[in-house]
Amino acid sequence: MEALKQRILRDGRAVNEQILIVDSFLNHQVDVELMRLVGEAFAERFAQAKPNRIVTIEASGIAPAVMTAQCLRLPMVILKKSASRVLSDDIVQTEVFSFTKNAPYQLTLKRQFIENGDRVLLIDDFLANGEAALGACRLIEQAGATVAGIGAVICKAFQPGLQKLRDQGYDVDALAKIRKMSEGTIEFDEA
Amino acid sequence: MEALKQRILRDGRAVNEQILIVDSFLNHQVDVELMRLVGEAFAERFAQAKPNRIVTIEASGIAPAVMTAQCLRLPMVILKKSASRVLSDDIVQTEVFSFTKNAPYQLTLKRQFIENGDRVLLIDDFLANGEAALGACRLIEQAGATVAGIGAVICKAFQPGLQKLRDQGYDVDALAKIRKMSEGTIEFDEA
Repeated sequence: MEALKQRILRDGRAVNEQILIVDSFLNHQVDVELMRLVGEAFAERFAQAKPNRIVTIEASGIAPAVMTAQCLRLPMVILKKSASRVLSDDIVQTEVFSFTKNAPYQLTLKRQFIENGDRVLLIDDFLANGEAALGACRLIEQAGATVAGIGAVICKAFQPGLQKLRDQGYDVDALAKIRKMSEGTIEFDEA
Repeated sequence: MEALKQRILRDGRAVNEQILIVDSFLNHQVDVELMRLVGEAFAERFAQAKPNRIVTIEASGIAPAVMTAQCLRLPMVILKKSASRVLSDDIVQTEVFSFTKNAPYQLTLKRQFIENGDRVLLIDDFLANGEAALGACRLIEQAGATVAGIGAVICKAFQPGLQKLRDQGYDVDALAKIRKMSEGTIEFDEA
């Protein structure tokens, strides 16, 4: 998605080879018009997968997921990050390790909000190590649904998440795939 | 907002006199079409306050705030809930007590995302004790901006937040004001 790549080059900041700051338009301040275009791009990319539900992970995935859901006229479900394990029949949880916070959390879903047979499109802001996305896929499948596709706004393609998810057979894509970065420079994959 | 009140009566659940569950359309599963109508209602209610920025608090405020920002064509800023105090010149923080979690957190803003002279419309999903909204107002004013209005999707008007904020002179409104509730019954204020 060209408008997104241009925005990353203009307003993003590679702090080092691992950390990209995009908080002026994606995850602290949000450019809502850009998110509308992001939603349209996801809707176009994944329409043929025929999803009937959008799922995202709180909190930074919500804005792009709302816009994708609006474009496809689908309901959206926000997976919660809970510090503790809840023992309840109507809740499903899976442990995810956050590399950002260097600590695990319990990704949490009330079972009734994903139905048996649903085709879920998972939308998130970033794909890096893929731990959050893999956890979300486990919950979606535990609820009896199918992962119809996984869309990330930005993928750090030099980290293992993209390949791990593809190796498991998921249809994964990102609107901007970063091949390589270092302080002050960002290079995209063309594909 | 009639469609919202009807939805609360149909799909909301008053567990007791204090706790209302609306997670099937507002804060876990999200009805994006209803959120679009919520955004339109906020835009209409607060247009005359001439806001130039929407601010919300992660995570459940994001969906209604995105829709309000889309309707008014304004940028949006998400205030973060951080567990710890950060000492940095470019960050402003204020402590907020969460009655839901029975613990304090640091409401956090990168100073550059609210400018001196901004007119901010604060949007959140719930207004109850008002602690989060009051904290957000402190941050907005610390950044040199004015709180042009405060909109909550649902207000528990029998709790002190609405009156506290009005006593401080803020223009506060909610799209559904609950006057009273108990297990199985929900009554709205007409105003």
